[in-house]
Amino acid sequence: MSDIKKLLESVQSGNLSVDDALLRIKEKPFDDLGYAVVDLHRKVRQGATEVVYGAGKSAQQIIGILKSLKQNGDKTVLVTRISPEKARNVQEEIDITYYEVSSLAIMGNLPPKDGNGRVVVATGGTSDIPVAEEAALTLEALGNEVVRIYDVGVSGLHRLLSRLDDIMSASVIVAVAGMVGALASVIGGLADCPVIAVPTSVGYGTCFNGLSALLSMLNSCASGVSVVNIDNGFGAGYQASMINHVKGK
Amino acid sequence: MSDIKKLLESVQSGNLSVDDALLRIKEKPFDDLGYAVVDLHRKVRQGATEVVYGAGKSAQQIIGILKSLKQNGDKTVLVTRISPEKARNVQEEIDITYYEVSSLAIMGNLPPKDGNGRVVVATGGTSDIPVAEEAALTLEALGNEVVRIYDVGVSGLHRLLSRLDDIMSASVIVAVAGMVGALASVIGGLADCPVIAVPTSVGYGTCFNGLSALLSMLNSCASGVSVVNIDNGFGAGYQASMINHVKGK
Amino acid sequence: MSDIKKLLESVQSGNLSVDDALLRIKEKPFDDLGYAVVDLHRKVRQGATEVVYGAGKSAQQIIGILKSLKQNGDKTVLVTRISPEKARNVQEEIDITYYEVSSLAIMGNLPPKDGNGRVVVATGGTSDIPVAEEAALTLEALGNEVVRIYDVGVSGLHRLLSRLDDIMSASVIVAVAGMVGALASVIGGLADCPVIAVPTSVGYGTCFNGLSALLSMLNSCASGVSVVNIDNGFGAGYQASMINHVKGK
Amino acid sequence: MSDIKKLLESVQSGNLSVDDALLRIKEKPFDDLGYAVVDLHRKVRQGATEVVYGAGKSAQQIIGILKSLKQNGDKTVLVTRISPEKARNVQEEIDITYYEVSSLAIMGNLPPKDGNGRVVVATGGTSDIPVAEEAALTLEALGNEVVRIYDVGVSGLHRLLSRLDDIMSASVIVAVAGMVGALASVIGGLADCPVIAVPTSVGYGTCFNGLSALLSMLNSCASGVSVVNIDNGFGAGYQASMINHVKGK
Amino acid sequence: MSDIKKLLESVQSGNLSVDDALLRIKEKPFDDLGYAVVDLHRKVRQGATEVVYGAGKSAQQIIGILKSLKQNGDKTVLVTRISPEKARNVQEEIDITYYEVSSLAIMGNLPPKDGNGRVVVATGGTSDIPVAEEAALTLEALGNEVVRIYDVGVSGLHRLLSRLDDIMSASVIVAVAGMVGALASVIGGLADCPVIAVPTSVGYGTCFNGLSALLSMLNSCASGVSVVNIDNGFGAGYQASMINHVKGK
Amino acid sequence: MSDIKKLLESVQSGNLSVDDALLRIKEKPFDDLGYAVVDLHRKVRQGATEVVYGAGKSAQQIIGILKSLKQNGDKTVLVTRISPEKARNVQEEIDITYYEVSSLAIMGNLPPKDGNGRVVVATGGTSDIPVAEEAALTLEALGNEVVRIYDVGVSGLHRLLSRLDDIMSASVIVAVAGMVGALASVIGGLADCPVIAVPTSVGYGTCFNGLSALLSMLNSCASGVSVVNIDNGFGAGYQASMINHVKGK
Amino acid sequence: MSDIKKLLESVQSGNLSVDDALLRIKEKPFDDLGYAVVDLHRKVRQGATEVVYGAGKSAQQIIGILKSLKQNGDKTVLVTRISPEKARNVQEEIDITYYEVSSLAIMGNLPPKDGNGRVVVATGGTSDIPVAEEAALTLEALGNEVVRIYDVGVSGLHRLLSRLDDIMSASVIVAVAGMVGALASVIGGLADCPVIAVPTSVGYGTCFNGLSALLSMLNSCASGVSVVNIDNGFGAGYQASMINHVKGK
Amino acid sequence: MSDIKKLLESVQSGNLSVDDALLRIKEKPFDDLGYAVVDLHRKVRQGATEVVYGAGKSAQQIIGILKSLKQNGDKTVLVTRISPEKARNVQEEIDITYYEVSSLAIMGNLPPKDGNGRVVVATGGTSDIPVAEEAALTLEALGNEVVRIYDVGVSGLHRLLSRLDDIMSASVIVAVAGMVGALASVIGGLADCPVIAVPTSVGYGTCFNGLSALLSMLNSCASGVSVVNIDNGFGAGYQASMINHVKGK
Repeated sequence: MSDIKKLLESVQSGNLSVDDALLRIKEKPFDDLGYAVVDLHRKVRQGATEVVYGAGKSAQQIIGILKSLKQNGDKTVLVTRISPEKARNVQEEIDITYYEVSSLAIMGNLPPKDGNGRVVVATGGTSDIPVAEEAALTLEALGNEVVRIYDVGVSGLHRLLSRLDDIMSASVIVAVAGMVGALASVIGGLADCPVIAVPTSVGYGTCFNGLSALLSMLNSCASGVSVVNIDNGFGAGYQASMINHVKGK
Repeated sequence: MSDIKKLLESVQSGNLSVDDALLRIKEKPFDDLGYAVVDLHRKVRQGATEVVYGAGKSAQQIIGILKSLKQNGDKTVLVTRISPEKARNVQEEIDITYYEVSSLAIMGNLPPKDGNGRVVVATGGTSDIPVAEEAALTLEALGNEVVRIYDVGVSGLHRLLSRLDDIMSASVIVAVAGMVGALASVIGGLADCPVIAVPTSVGYGTCFNGLSALLSMLNSCASGVSVVNIDNGFGAGYQASMINHVKGK
Repeated sequence: MSDIKKLLESVQSGNLSVDDALLRIKEKPFDDLGYAVVDLHRKVRQGATEVVYGAGKSAQQIIGILKSLKQNGDKTVLVTRISPEKARNVQEEIDITYYEVSSLAIMGNLPPKDGNGRVVVATGGTSDIPVAEEAALTLEALGNEVVRIYDVGVSGLHRLLSRLDDIMSASVIVAVAGMVGALASVIGGLADCPVIAVPTSVGYGTCFNGLSALLSMLNSCASGVSVVNIDNGFGAGYQASMINHVKGK
Repeated sequence: MSDIKKLLESVQSGNLSVDDALLRIKEKPFDDLGYAVVDLHRKVRQGATEVVYGAGKSAQQIIGILKSLKQNGDKTVLVTRISPEKARNVQEEIDITYYEVSSLAIMGNLPPKDGNGRVVVATGGTSDIPVAEEAALTLEALGNEVVRIYDVGVSGLHRLLSRLDDIMSASVIVAVAGMVGALASVIGGLADCPVIAVPTSVGYGTCFNGLSALLSMLNSCASGVSVVNIDNGFGAGYQASMINHVKGK
Repeated sequence: MSDIKKLLESVQSGNLSVDDALLRIKEKPFDDLGYAVVDLHRKVRQGATEVVYGAGKSAQQIIGILKSLKQNGDKTVLVTRISPEKARNVQEEIDITYYEVSSLAIMGNLPPKDGNGRVVVATGGTSDIPVAEEAALTLEALGNEVVRIYDVGVSGLHRLLSRLDDIMSASVIVAVAGMVGALASVIGGLADCPVIAVPTSVGYGTCFNGLSALLSMLNSCASGVSVVNIDNGFGAGYQASMINHVKGK
Repeated sequence: MSDIKKLLESVQSGNLSVDDALLRIKEKPFDDLGYAVVDLHRKVRQGATEVVYGAGKSAQQIIGILKSLKQNGDKTVLVTRISPEKARNVQEEIDITYYEVSSLAIMGNLPPKDGNGRVVVATGGTSDIPVAEEAALTLEALGNEVVRIYDVGVSGLHRLLSRLDDIMSASVIVAVAGMVGALASVIGGLADCPVIAVPTSVGYGTCFNGLSALLSMLNSCASGVSVVNIDNGFGAGYQASMINHVKGK
Repeated sequence: MSDIKKLLESVQSGNLSVDDALLRIKEKPFDDLGYAVVDLHRKVRQGATEVVYGAGKSAQQIIGILKSLKQNGDKTVLVTRISPEKARNVQEEIDITYYEVSSLAIMGNLPPKDGNGRVVVATGGTSDIPVAEEAALTLEALGNEVVRIYDVGVSGLHRLLSRLDDIMSASVIVAVAGMVGALASVIGGLADCPVIAVPTSVGYGTCFNGLSALLSMLNSCASGVSVVNIDNGFGAGYQASMINHVKGK
Repeated sequence: MSDIKKLLESVQSGNLSVDDALLRIKEKPFDDLGYAVVDLHRKVRQGATEVVYGAGKSAQQIIGILKSLKQNGDKTVLVTRISPEKARNVQEEIDITYYEVSSLAIMGNLPPKDGNGRVVVATGGTSDIPVAEEAALTLEALGNEVVRIYDVGVSGLHRLLSRLDDIMSASVIVAVAGMVGALASVIGGLADCPVIAVPTSVGYGTCFNGLSALLSMLNSCASGVSVVNIDNGFGAGYQASMINHVKGK
């Protein structure tokens, strides 16, 4: 809001004409590429590494957006849901690191780990790892220390309980699970920090592409659990990073 | 099949005419009351206390069926899903014991406990108790020793773990839970006996009247878990009793 | 985990017998009332005011649980989803304050406001207020300063924009909305703090009792948004409080 | 109805026999190709460029229909949902212009822009463009001036607000969005003209192939919003054109 | 947008301080009653009679809003979804006309009929009339001439065909139908004006409270049909009025 | 069609003016009561007793329709889905027989049984009887001999097999069942006549108000089975009567 | 049943031993190929050409079944849902005619047309033809005269009305339609014979693979309409043939 | 639990330090391979051949797990849901037997058949065989004698009845069926042992990939039936084996 106040003061002082002020309000904060409106002020507003959602964009469109962001000074840019083919095409023009297991690319260096504590990323099974890695890499790209705890589903409780120390000392936890989705409830009951649950589309039959896990997680009887979209590792990682960067008094 | 064989032998030996044989095949094993066909041979076929599904039947219809079964010699009859009002009306003519919390009535005495071992009935929360009691009373009416473990949901794992002895020594387990339905998975992972899971319609919002728990249980990643209809305590108790009466070699 | 370590040390030093140790592990942390297992250590584990889920429990059961908690020393206890009738019955034996609009009762005094910052609770319409108040009162019962912004749905953007200062300075935001559920997306795009979205069952037809808002929120294109169950104001408030109490470095 | 009246008058005047009249009523207004009944009078009835729904028809069938329409004098014909392969096959026999991004072909010239005002076609994201282009090209093929506003989703409100002039001066608006579908609500609240909302199947997980956006749009709390089928850019464009051609008093 | 321009000019000319300008932008256009933010500028922005959504608001809240609108000078106010009891309570303090069949109240006089033409409101059956009347009265409250064609469902085509004159001369058509929902398709094929379809929750079994009709209407194979929420007579009437007031060249 | 031909001939011969002919085509075949368009020619077109769908119509509306039909000479009129209260109100003015178990009323006498053979109406359980009786009474009101076979669900096959003679000699069969819906498949495999299946909303939990039975019946692996709406005993009876009245060569 | 009676009489007369009788009851009526139990008596029981469901069976399995049927004397055998590849493989060993548009094969000659009258098969659009042809060929393979009326959807009513003669003189009608599914309602209102409705999976978005059409058809407000599974042309043809072969008095 | 007791006794006796005890509790019972936590104690806890869920794991991951299990002494290991390609890759390093029809591999020899009796695996049709074989092979790998009864669906009852001896003498029955799912109900009514029902995704249209069969089975009106996930032959076989190994008194 202070931006608008500054603008109004410039008008008042005569340093800015009314029409120019109007123009600035409307045109400054993004770069319109035709097929995409690149949000150049987002970093300022949300204090975050910029993110590009790769699915449904062509390699050329991704290249265009990355160039626009680079010229604007963004240091770290995350590209999510980008296939190996598209990634290779982008790499011919721009320097990015590609992580195949999570279909994710990063342009620029990882920032320093400046969060309040560590973020645990846990999965119920081996098949949940691609989604979990999307969350973990997002967290690392946003400056968080990540502890990975994979394949600790609730049908073998002792595997989970053996990692109790990590769970109880976490700052935030991202719980990734398909099928039964109970991992979030059990972790939510054990931990005393916020738990972000990510249902995955792993499974068959009545898992209904993640619906079963989603409902299970939304009905978690443990307090302190909230949920993101099916397979949305990025969204969970992003919010977990926000929580891990909340400023204490 | 031996019944038909005997019949055929009687025909062969001239002790039974062809038409009488046909008649017996068709008419003997039940009593047609018009609104209901009471199955008098079921006990023989399935070795079980007879059961009457009370919902959708009037008090008068239930009385008629109970009388027919009594005359046929059935000692224990279970009436499920019978409202307090109907139960009172039935009690005016027939001697039954009514269990209000589970909307269930029993005519006659409980049989001796002759199963292989004990059957555990567990619930995730307090609200699941009516369904659990339907299962537990069904089990007792069918000759089983029952151990009740209530309110041990997975969001407070230590409550469940404190009953580990009961769970690990059970012959069969009926796991009753609404909302997240993870109880079945966790118990299935801890126990080494069959687990019959009963989703309940307890909860609100995305519990969708038990659908969330149902899907969660069907996707149980623990082996040895199968599922019955939402709120079907009777069905779970009935099958658990069958398993608890399986004859060893 | 240190509790178990202490216990083991007591065994080693001979101060505790093996059987007593086993007993303590199993029996100490809760009070088994038969119909409910009251979790007496939860406060220690999660640092929170105790919460009782009132739906599906009788007034007598709620009284029993409250007495058990009181004897254990709990100062503030929240009872959610308790009807006016039940609340009156409880009030005859225990001193509680009842909030009718949100069907919520509080035993004991509100704790001091010791969170990191302020928590905004926003609604799309007037009909969403009961759920929002459940969140707001939960937050206050857990020691948070709450700013209420009601009836600022996205079909009249200027109403929401006029509260931009509150939104941009919040520590966490709880966005409560039925029908279209777009409030969470729009706020998520404006704010730079975590947003917990609560779909409500307000609406008719294709709102499908909150399903439309739920899906809309899960698909939020803004980063930093996670979702709880339909009408689950308590769950959102609880997690928002956790986030508002995260310790900075 | 006047057609039938004329027919009856011809019968009355003796210019037409009863049987011939019957025949005309039944056989005149279309050309039966066996696999399709081409509607030759539609243009008269609805004043519109003819449209062929290409999906589920073979290239040969499309060619047959186009030839029949051409012989009947139709100047502009739109073919929707036609794949690049089919389009190439058709082009070998008939002169059509193919638009790959929207899988749409046009036979003949575009008509003059004779609508009441301009029609805005807006999208939430880059991935919604194919559906939006189907709407935009349909509008142009039906004689409308189109303003495209792409990638102005509600998670970055300032992008949308910067185009407020276009939105507020539109005659009709077609709002195309997947996932959260809030675009229609927000635009509906800003504009004072009818808004036709098109949910798209863009997204993953709980977007459920457009269901989430559809429900969101149907529940739009803004007045003046109606909805067409998922991905039905053509339907939205067609109706928007009708509205843009409504005759004032 | 010109409002903001004027404001900026006042700042430039020194007639308005920066802080006052900021204040005006934020506070002017509505009246915050705490439970509702009454939108006083909506009439200006959308040129419409004001509308209050009555469901989920108490009689006292409705009275408060009506008074605020009255003081602001609104002449005609529509209150939708208001029960007979609430209406009676409101009538004790404010002069409103109540229409019981459609659960709708109107404060003030109906405006003159100044639309481009006539609006047809058609229903498939007798049971659809309450929703149709909500649409028809909304249309009349917004200055439209309405032609009602009720009980002309497609299973008796001749009933519909006998009203062909009305259908073919309409400016806009609102088609209200439950169950099969085919009315919209058939009318859409006959008419050459926009058709707004309203699915109703009339029916049983697989009508699924209007879902069957909704899907049927969304899949309408006739062009020029769009759909609003189930039972949303108001929404259809509102948009139909907008279309009937579109200004020709 | 011959009606229209006659009309045209009258025009040709000068016995009828053009405008009168138009009028007759449009106005003759029904009586417009405002709230309902009573179809007076339906009996001629479909050779059937007239039927009034009672749900959603007031007693006064039903009386009005019955009077209109009576004056038109209809001898037998069926009123379906009419509650006991409404029936009593109608009986005060019109002589009807009311069947409470199936919520159905009949005005006039039953016609002679003139079908090709007998129609079997079978149910899976006692609770399906109300729907079955709606079918059976509809059949009797349309001139069919009905054989009722109730409570012969597939979980006790011998009950069904004992009625094999009736099933194999039927002309048509109406199979009414809730829950598992397998009755239609089994009967379809046994019989060699058409089977009309009626799913009922009997059951709980995953019966989903008849959806389970509906899907089960639609997937019937037996040939010769078709399905009507959930609880639509009338529809099944009506079509079964049509089939039982098909004319042989 | 008479078969069993004869068997019993043979036992009584000493012509058959008890064990042989038992054997005959169990083993005679089918040929167990291991992977399939070929039902050799079905033709006797249902008087029909034999049918093989080709989907999910390998070419070798189909060949085995056809050979078994051929040896048993079946003259006409229909194979449904058989892909072109499988058909070619079968043709290498057995003489069948393959119909590619409906993925159907026929072994043997078509039987004489011995039904009561003609069967109309109608479709809403061109894309519904494959399903309609499955119905039409099934009807022809079962001895029926078929009238095909394709692409007469309700959005262009005059196309349908021009075929009114065929519709009104039919013995049975099979109505095949996707998307809106209104064809069945409209035809049901026009015809006075049974209508079997077949929803098709044609369409996109909210057609939900035929669900929209299915619901629409189940809710048909016309009497005399029943429904089969989505895309189940065979089932509709089979039942229509049964109806067309019903014996009159 | 006795393991923990032994551990505590070792601590008490001084044979084990506190830290070592802690370590053992946490680290012993599994082998953490990074991508999977192999559960080495499961055999002890559940007395079962080890099982690896192959879907979602790479051939390399499966090899790693198999090697870890082999080194730990497991004799029989089942790998489910493994494609032919993966199986071939695994076979290059490890000796396994692959069963293509059920996509299942077995490492090691089959154990002796030591169950209480025989387990029947029945299917409704030929297409259900792959799922049935998964169940049957799982049963054999767990030491059970299996009787296969395939293609005995309820639309041809006599096929099923001819196998009555096997059904009535079984110890447990696994009923595998798609589409109508009635097989479980009918078998449940005939047998007097537990029935585990497996819905399959066989079918089309409203079979909804197994949902129809699932609901049908959950609503089974026969007692003693429980259900596992769609296509989950393994789960049914595993539980059936548990039941077949229940120890009698």
